[in-house]
Amino acid sequence: MMKQFMGEDFLLSTETAKELFATAKTMPIFDWHCHLSPKEIYENRQPQDITALWLLGDHYKWRGMRGFGIAEDYITGEKSSEEKFKAWAAALPYMVGNPLYHWTHLELRRYFGIYEPLSAKTAEGIWKAANEKIAAGGFTLRELIEKSNVACVCTTDDAADSLEYHKLIAEDKSFKCRVIPAFRPDKALNIELWTFIPWLKDMEKAAEMEINSYADLKQALLKRIEFFAQLGCRATDHALLYVPYERATECELDAIFKKGKNGETLTKKELDQYRTELMRFFAKEYHKRNWGMEIHIGAMRNNNTPKFQKLGPDTGYDSIADREIAHGLSRLLDSLETEGILPKTILFTLNPKDNYVLGSMIGNFQSEEAASKMQFGTAWWFNDNIDGMREQIKALGNLGVLGKFIGMVTDSRSFVSYPRHEYFRRILCEFIGNLVENGEYPADMETLKEIVRDVSFNNAARYFGIDA
Amino acid sequence: MMKQFMGEDFLLSTETAKELFATAKTMPIFDWHCHLSPKEIYENRQPQDITALWLLGDHYKWRGMRGFGIAEDYITGEKSSEEKFKAWAAALPYMVGNPLYHWTHLELRRYFGIYEPLSAKTAEGIWKAANEKIAAGGFTLRELIEKSNVACVCTTDDAADSLEYHKLIAEDKSFKCRVIPAFRPDKALNIELWTFIPWLKDMEKAAEMEINSYADLKQALLKRIEFFAQLGCRATDHALLYVPYERATECELDAIFKKGKNGETLTKKELDQYRTELMRFFAKEYHKRNWGMEIHIGAMRNNNTPKFQKLGPDTGYDSIADREIAHGLSRLLDSLETEGILPKTILFTLNPKDNYVLGSMIGNFQSEEAASKMQFGTAWWFNDNIDGMREQIKALGNLGVLGKFIGMVTDSRSFVSYPRHEYFRRILCEFIGNLVENGEYPADMETLKEIVRDVSFNNAARYFGIDA
Amino acid sequence: MMKQFMGEDFLLSTETAKELFATAKTMPIFDWHCHLSPKEIYENRQPQDITALWLLGDHYKWRGMRGFGIAEDYITGEKSSEEKFKAWAAALPYMVGNPLYHWTHLELRRYFGIYEPLSAKTAEGIWKAANEKIAAGGFTLRELIEKSNVACVCTTDDAADSLEYHKLIAEDKSFKCRVIPAFRPDKALNIELWTFIPWLKDMEKAAEMEINSYADLKQALLKRIEFFAQLGCRATDHALLYVPYERATECELDAIFKKGKNGETLTKKELDQYRTELMRFFAKEYHKRNWGMEIHIGAMRNNNTPKFQKLGPDTGYDSIADREIAHGLSRLLDSLETEGILPKTILFTLNPKDNYVLGSMIGNFQSEEAASKMQFGTAWWFNDNIDGMREQIKALGNLGVLGKFIGMVTDSRSFVSYPRHEYFRRILCEFIGNLVENGEYPADMETLKEIVRDVSFNNAARYFGIDA
Repeated sequence: MMKQFMGEDFLLSTETAKELFATAKTMPIFDWHCHLSPKEIYENRQPQDITALWLLGDHYKWRGMRGFGIAEDYITGEKSSEEKFKAWAAALPYMVGNPLYHWTHLELRRYFGIYEPLSAKTAEGIWKAANEKIAAGGFTLRELIEKSNVACVCTTDDAADSLEYHKLIAEDKSFKCRVIPAFRPDKALNIELWTFIPWLKDMEKAAEMEINSYADLKQALLKRIEFFAQLGCRATDHALLYVPYERATECELDAIFKKGKNGETLTKKELDQYRTELMRFFAKEYHKRNWGMEIHIGAMRNNNTPKFQKLGPDTGYDSIADREIAHGLSRLLDSLETEGILPKTILFTLNPKDNYVLGSMIGNFQSEEAASKMQFGTAWWFNDNIDGMREQIKALGNLGVLGKFIGMVTDSRSFVSYPRHEYFRRILCEFIGNLVENGEYPADMETLKEIVRDVSFNNAARYFGIDA
Repeated sequence: MMKQFMGEDFLLSTETAKELFATAKTMPIFDWHCHLSPKEIYENRQPQDITALWLLGDHYKWRGMRGFGIAEDYITGEKSSEEKFKAWAAALPYMVGNPLYHWTHLELRRYFGIYEPLSAKTAEGIWKAANEKIAAGGFTLRELIEKSNVACVCTTDDAADSLEYHKLIAEDKSFKCRVIPAFRPDKALNIELWTFIPWLKDMEKAAEMEINSYADLKQALLKRIEFFAQLGCRATDHALLYVPYERATECELDAIFKKGKNGETLTKKELDQYRTELMRFFAKEYHKRNWGMEIHIGAMRNNNTPKFQKLGPDTGYDSIADREIAHGLSRLLDSLETEGILPKTILFTLNPKDNYVLGSMIGNFQSEEAASKMQFGTAWWFNDNIDGMREQIKALGNLGVLGKFIGMVTDSRSFVSYPRHEYFRRILCEFIGNLVENGEYPADMETLKEIVRDVSFNNAARYFGIDA
Repeated sequence: MMKQFMGEDFLLSTETAKELFATAKTMPIFDWHCHLSPKEIYENRQPQDITALWLLGDHYKWRGMRGFGIAEDYITGEKSSEEKFKAWAAALPYMVGNPLYHWTHLELRRYFGIYEPLSAKTAEGIWKAANEKIAAGGFTLRELIEKSNVACVCTTDDAADSLEYHKLIAEDKSFKCRVIPAFRPDKALNIELWTFIPWLKDMEKAAEMEINSYADLKQALLKRIEFFAQLGCRATDHALLYVPYERATECELDAIFKKGKNGETLTKKELDQYRTELMRFFAKEYHKRNWGMEIHIGAMRNNNTPKFQKLGPDTGYDSIADREIAHGLSRLLDSLETEGILPKTILFTLNPKDNYVLGSMIGNFQSEEAASKMQFGTAWWFNDNIDGMREQIKALGNLGVLGKFIGMVTDSRSFVSYPRHEYFRRILCEFIGNLVENGEYPADMETLKEIVRDVSFNNAARYFGIDA
């Protein structure tokens, strides 16, 4: 029998799955990795219309529109909000099997109460209806977050960030969702990019010191780590195209740093050395503070030079790398383990070919420090769809302890992306439900309900210590 | 309830899938990448028996026979047609889960009206029945093509080819299927192979000029491109083991060319430079003419030296490579984008590990020049089976705009391979049908029927401009 | 309707699958690759308790426990048998989707007649019940093997091994299972490891000669090969992180050998040369004797240095590598084919991304020497689960001749791992059953029953010649 389009039992095909989801959906959300703007959270504006909420910053949707053949004017250009909305609506029905199709309709349902599928035909009506809802209120960013039952978010913040909005948000006791910074020192690691020298200037200001040597750099970073700690930070993030492992002496590192500061070209070996040792420095500090170290592996960014020059980064021109990662990752983690400075670590891959590499890698470094101290991070970005999430869950299930998985993150810039947690929970419950219905796991609903609640929220809360 | 073996609803498990396939199957075929021989099309012979039609040139079947342990005499050797046919029949039932099993029976059904499964037991009867049908007529190559409702095929032609048979076919208005050449200059790119020097001689003749420099080579190629254009060419093809990206000056290229012409050994860097810049030259010319550039990545050819020496290329000794491809491909495409010379491009991978690399790569370079100007090509060769096609469709669905996919090609030397389009359409309709039945896409049959018709035929027709 | 947990129809969802499994389960087991200890088989002790049988040597379970956050004391440390058992029991329910969950319960059912799911709650009762069963007898290692209907096992033996227990077992006619050595000269290949020099000493003793040159090494290995042959060896095994292909002269090899013997550091090229040529030497000898050459590709071992130093190898700190393998493997096999010395070969990959590489590679070198002379080995180690086995079967089905597959091996150190053959057979029958029920293969049960019996046992028996 045909199921209702995205009905109550969306993605749930068994009674067991439905029963598990009934408990999963009651859990709050801990979005421990996202790209929300603390400034926007603090300012708490209401979006002008659904285009502002949906299309202004969402490069996932932009890619879909470009793939349909829509002119850039309707995407990032000068066309009106309404024209952009309608261009999106016209393209959407052709994205059969794309998560954007589901996200779009989940968002229309959960935030707007609109159940009609979006298409060229319905665009006019939905444009009006959605904007009326926004105008009627309840759509400020904080209202959206609270409506989504979000207990805590970790934003992603540059090491030089003033965190001023985090302070302001923390002072405002009226907002129930906890907002914590996460430490993302990518600009420190990317010594070869044009961003490095300006970033160094920002760091000198933030750390209130000159940075003339590698030792200075570490001291400045340490100051910032301390500052992030004061504001409750407990998660960090690092984007690596691949995982380098080339050791170097302090003296070599100092020379490399100085070259970088002078804008000189560095060799591959120097870059690998610098990044290896800086990662090792970070890991040690994270371990001291019991912070979780996220490593996101395999994003190849800004592939389209003319568009990068016109629109900048994070505009929909990134894709999946395919480098070998196992050796470097093993050596880096082992070097930390050997010195007793391996922090809790969450490994993400953008290339699904690496699911089994990461799923087996974490097993090399587990310990009693935490339940699944080493985590295989949820399906990310281009994998953040039904197939990708199911494959990640299957790989982790086969290779690790699924019941101790810290689960989903939105990794999103959008204030209406929280239904992706619902999406994930449905997929998780369907996966477990099928095991039970097929006789592959006993119908021990007490244990399984505990597990889905844990994976939905509790595991992450314990892992990062926000339940304390 | 057990389904009938390859019955009317073969691969279709839902009512939605069946309804979609009912419209898909009415569409003509545009086989925009195949290896049919224009000479054979022109000559339009009738095969002598089913072995001639089926086994004489089909290295897919040969591999199956070899895997069963059949002696080469029964495959490419001296045994009689009947003995070869029976050897094939005896092996086939053991190929459980192999697309050859389905292709064989689709072909027996669609061309011969034979519904009995082929095996050692039935071989004698089917041998006789099939040969009687052939003898009764209706099996000339053009009849086979017309019976298959093929509107257009693009053959694959060397840059030095005279295209004489294309001219002859075009003059013969009695044949309804359009036959267009596709430009495949692999022998120009493979400067290091023994084929290069003889090919240069062929090119000198074809282009009516001496080729003594890299500039000459480009001029000769340009003449040939113009000639292909006159005969209606609009698709090109390039086989790359991996995608190189090493830039070089005209002066360096000239030196490399001369080494190649003299049969001197070239370094990996020189080969990468030569292939990078020649691909860039081709791309520019294709872009000018609005041709589609196919790139087939990852075939490792002629792995078995003794068999290559005995039987030559394309005899069943090829397999899947596993090189890193993302970086080089990104840099090559970006260099074209930057200069505004990126043609419509179709990327194929022989290694399914790269499905998500290609599916995300195309998103970096989409534009309003065409609906899905950048295409992720259908599952190819070793992936041309239910799983491979489903995985490609899923990956493209997740990452791109499935509704604008230009769909299936046979990539075949066989005149009875067209049921593979049917096979593909069934898989496509089953995929979409499941989405609808599971509540993952609304039952908007009007849109979905448009989409399956488009993916079956219209998208490719528009993309390559044969509907014009 | 919900199926019973691991009931009679476990993993079998169709009538066809059930009918096929009914015949598959009657077949004996030929475990042609395992790590059972011949000494333990000969001594034939009864385990003291279920912990001794289950947890003392099983690093698969240890990884599960570590992932749950259990302290090492309860895993490899000083805690009591009962405490260790209970720690395992408490962790197990969280391993949702893990093959350990199924293996555990298959073993409780098939050897102990215990049907209750193991958990913290049931641990006390199962601990007592299982130990009572053991105490009541029938649990000596040979009884366990015989109870499992094992016709033959190939143990894995170092080239320098005395094989004394093989001789003793062979003399004891009361034990019905044949126990054959398999030749695994990894220590000869791993010239760069600390194990090489001590191993050379062992070899000098075993071969009764001094080994001072590469020629000596080959002579000594040849003596050992002859010795293994006398004891019925017909399978060999080689673990390779990747497949090197660098040719070298005898003179170069001699210099490399001497460096290795002196403990000097070797370059990557030297290591590749040494391993390439030694593999070629082995292959030639295997081909002469019609032995099967197993190559296990892609295990990255001992990733955790502190744990390796404390616990040694094979303690749960290995994971999956991701090197490129296609080129080297093709060149190595082709060099053997060219000289007419390619033995029967079974290729295993630890990284499922390589399933299609291996599945297509074997097709390059098939011949009439054997039905599927080149085999794509079953899903191994981290892939030895429902998904991994299904994917391997699908890939082999799509690319090769599934009916000639030599099937499952336990690759295990455990005397109660034989239900994994049952697990495999269920998955195989389910796979084939689905093809039939979906109309993708005719309901030719006679042929299909022959095929499942063959894949379960007969193919391997014929391939390795133990039916002779």
